[in-house]
Amino acid sequence: MSFIYLLDLCAVAVCAITATLEARRRELDWFGVVVIAVIAGIGGGTLRDILLGRLPVYWVHDPAYVVVGVVAASFAFFFGRLRLPLNFFLIPDAIGLALFTVIGTSIALTLGTPWLIAALMGVITGVFGGVIRDILCNEIPLIFRTDIYATASFAGALLLIVLDSYRVNHNIAIVLSMVCIIVIRLVAIRWHISLPRLRADT
Amino acid sequence: MSFIYLLDLCAVAVCAITATLEARRRELDWFGVVVIAVIAGIGGGTLRDILLGRLPVYWVHDPAYVVVGVVAASFAFFFGRLRLPLNFFLIPDAIGLALFTVIGTSIALTLGTPWLIAALMGVITGVFGGVIRDILCNEIPLIFRTDIYATASFAGALLLIVLDSYRVNHNIAIVLSMVCIIVIRLVAIRWHISLPRLRADT
Amino acid sequence: MSFIYLLDLCAVAVCAITATLEARRRELDWFGVVVIAVIAGIGGGTLRDILLGRLPVYWVHDPAYVVVGVVAASFAFFFGRLRLPLNFFLIPDAIGLALFTVIGTSIALTLGTPWLIAALMGVITGVFGGVIRDILCNEIPLIFRTDIYATASFAGALLLIVLDSYRVNHNIAIVLSMVCIIVIRLVAIRWHISLPRLRADT
Repeated sequence: MSFIYLLDLCAVAVCAITATLEARRRELDWFGVVVIAVIAGIGGGTLRDILLGRLPVYWVHDPAYVVVGVVAASFAFFFGRLRLPLNFFLIPDAIGLALFTVIGTSIALTLGTPWLIAALMGVITGVFGGVIRDILCNEIPLIFRTDIYATASFAGALLLIVLDSYRVNHNIAIVLSMVCIIVIRLVAIRWHISLPRLRADT
Repeated sequence: MSFIYLLDLCAVAVCAITATLEARRRELDWFGVVVIAVIAGIGGGTLRDILLGRLPVYWVHDPAYVVVGVVAASFAFFFGRLRLPLNFFLIPDAIGLALFTVIGTSIALTLGTPWLIAALMGVITGVFGGVIRDILCNEIPLIFRTDIYATASFAGALLLIVLDSYRVNHNIAIVLSMVCIIVIRLVAIRWHISLPRLRADT
Repeated sequence: MSFIYLLDLCAVAVCAITATLEARRRELDWFGVVVIAVIAGIGGGTLRDILLGRLPVYWVHDPAYVVVGVVAASFAFFFGRLRLPLNFFLIPDAIGLALFTVIGTSIALTLGTPWLIAALMGVITGVFGGVIRDILCNEIPLIFRTDIYATASFAGALLLIVLDSYRVNHNIAIVLSMVCIIVIRLVAIRWHISLPRLRADT
């Protein structure tokens, strides 16, 4: 569990940093940026825990998540003028999405939820932090508008469920599902693949 | 319970379809529309369950709600160009509001909450899905701006509570309350009745 | 507990009134304003209770909170044209922030959460109502953009935790923490102190 835990903290940090870089475009002070960044990092898992009734939510008895989020966001806030290209974070971001998804799906499966709901919990864990981030920034959430972020997450969650149902070793199943999500995500970015879209004039 | 359950699923479907038709005006892909539509369908009951502590929330152990929402929204998304007039849905929508309200109120009464809170839970179940839908679409929620949607819901919830306190048969009370909500809602639409409003210049 | 309870109701009323005065700038009917005002009053404590797993949330079995919020907001709605200056409420508002913060922090400490999380719960209780209010009004939440509202709350929560850890009498600790929050808040308003801010061009 120790390695997953460390990866989980890293995913929170990456989420917080990308949220900080996005929030930089707005007139926000340090506090506002840090709060939005921490929410982006832990929001998905928090909603999952609430919906599943795993209360208090996971970070209440382990402040490490909040601390990592605050430190990462503050760092990005004050050193943001280093102007790292945004796509410097695309691969860590894809890994974070993958990790959050498999953790959320695993937790839901452990609680005995139906497979569809387990996959949904994986997607919620993976993408909901970004949704709140965009709502707080007063935008239509990005994932409703662009490429196949959530679709990659859903595909990986389904793969994990299928592998689990065939009693594949859980660690192998987790690694394969994460690879699936990361590959779909990066392929979609590289070739600008997206889902059918509504045109305003139809 | 079987008939109520079926009606409940229908109400989710209607909510999801009207949300899809509203979301069509925006540049959203299939995924974004479906997520917003499903949230509009199950969001009210979800918030009610969280506030009352009925966890995990009602759809976690019954994926039928999510499935119905996804199917209805996808259908409306791909066949939306049939251009059904929006008021084609006014009556199903009013029935959905009525049903969600009486279900929410009944559940809260069963848990022994004070009557005012029970009525509030009915209103939350009835209208909150639409509130999240509008927040996700980056609009001020519609119910804060127009006619007496929530007021109809509140009136019906109160009627149900009064009838229950006089030990009227619960099924009869539910039907009467639903009729009350539907009539108020349709009368308000027909004659453009609304509550006192703030003028920007006062 | 009776005096704290009364102060708590007053804080809900003040929150609801200031939210009403803010919502007046928008085209909202009575219902919309009252709902936003009540949410502003009880939203922070509600989120705290959900995250900590204290369900049902605190106002479910005590309708007084909702009643006070509705009455205060309705009063401000209909008599709002008296044009009380907005800073008429700055001192009650600071007291409300202080009170919500110490209540939230105390509750979390009682449940045995780590100190950082307890402070966070105090801040959430103090400021989250205003955050939802702004989201519902379709604005970037005010506290992310201006002065040190949340910072004052955080400082007071930390002071309470420190005093508690030195076994200072709890009532004295509460009073000192509230004074700390109120003073920081009013000093910040008076001399326009704020945190470092991102400039759009950096």
